[in-house]
Amino acid sequence: MTGRDKAVVLLSGGLDSATTLAIAKSQGFEVYALTFRYGQRHEGEIEAARRIAAHERVAGHVIAEFNLRIFGGSAITGEQAVPKSRSLDEIGRGIPVTYVPARNTIFLSFALAWAEVLESNHIFIAVNALDYSGYPDCRPEYIRAFQAMANLATKAGVEGRQRLTIHMPLVELSKAEIIRRGIELGVNYGLTRTCYDPSPADEACGECDACLLRLKGFAANGLIDPIVYRVRSVPAGAGP
Amino acid sequence: MTGRDKAVVLLSGGLDSATTLAIAKSQGFEVYALTFRYGQRHEGEIEAARRIAAHERVAGHVIAEFNLRIFGGSAITGEQAVPKSRSLDEIGRGIPVTYVPARNTIFLSFALAWAEVLESNHIFIAVNALDYSGYPDCRPEYIRAFQAMANLATKAGVEGRQRLTIHMPLVELSKAEIIRRGIELGVNYGLTRTCYDPSPADEACGECDACLLRLKGFAANGLIDPIVYRVRSVPAGAGP
Repeated sequence: MTGRDKAVVLLSGGLDSATTLAIAKSQGFEVYALTFRYGQRHEGEIEAARRIAAHERVAGHVIAEFNLRIFGGSAITGEQAVPKSRSLDEIGRGIPVTYVPARNTIFLSFALAWAEVLESNHIFIAVNALDYSGYPDCRPEYIRAFQAMANLATKAGVEGRQRLTIHMPLVELSKAEIIRRGIELGVNYGLTRTCYDPSPADEACGECDACLLRLKGFAANGLIDPIVYRVRSVPAGAGP
Repeated sequence: MTGRDKAVVLLSGGLDSATTLAIAKSQGFEVYALTFRYGQRHEGEIEAARRIAAHERVAGHVIAEFNLRIFGGSAITGEQAVPKSRSLDEIGRGIPVTYVPARNTIFLSFALAWAEVLESNHIFIAVNALDYSGYPDCRPEYIRAFQAMANLATKAGVEGRQRLTIHMPLVELSKAEIIRRGIELGVNYGLTRTCYDPSPADEACGECDACLLRLKGFAANGLIDPIVYRVRSVPAGAGP
């Protein structure tokens, strides 16, 4: 035992969650990373999470498995095509087809279970209110409602012990600010995987919403994203 | 399409959830039953859920699978012994070792995902505030907090469409009243499985908290529980 407070960090293998993990570490938490194999079409995301967890020397890494395809209903788990080459203005308007019903609620529920077993009062999630892609379960008011529910759901809540906090360190940051913070903390973005497109596993499409936002974020910092793209839609020198 | 409203009903295979399913049907809902294989030690519960779903001719039955043993921490999924022969007065005091961290939160999260795919605004759960066994996530204030969170989590919530309701038809009923209601609705309690003890699959122990409460409920109605017990701790003629 190190005596440090424990935190469960949701780690998808993407840029945002890798940065969130580094922030939790920088705040002194002993980090337990939680990743999901939930029927998403690309295993590459899970491999990225493994690489990041190993690189960051987390205290524990669990990959929880279940299949959201049993319910259908999304491009990430179903058979719809991932949309390509939307303009940056289009991203963030409405709810995209890549939305997975109740995904963050399910993810946070598993995090809550682990936190209770670990006797941890801290969960970190990489939601973002600015660059987010229109998902209802990425909004801060949703996270706060989950936190209120969670504090009624557990032994600690009943017994009046210390309360659970769901940390959202990226919530007010732009993608460019997230990347700047991660670079300061030594995040190796070459290990991360952001692209929604499952094929091929070792390169990003450069055309889906997630790739476009990521490329824009690196460009805004005057940086070259270290991962391999099939298409680099945003020139490296672009943007604020 | 029948034109009836759809409802997702959490169906564990026990007496309470079988009654809840019958109540949802009696209220005119088209029922979609949701059962979990989550690392519990007895498969008998899942077989009971299958029998009940078939008997009640539900519109759909999904068995979602994941393993809560990855986190440890409970008699239902871990290696601790199930407590035996507590007095009825002891049941309901404190949180028992059979508590599974965040279980209802995880179950309701999956129900929320399915409800969203079905475009259903109704989830039924068999929580009970009177005869409950001390689980924090069986309290009505917890369920109401989950409902508030769920209405921020989904597309329907964002778009201001009709709101989700989590129904708790058993919440104010004693075990005896639950059984009386179920008998009125034609529930076949011979198909249900309540016992926490995994062995043997085809008989109930008669000594765990769940068996004691169930036996008491039948006795209070002057009824003989139709399932097989190894030990019948409460005489059939015992009063309410």
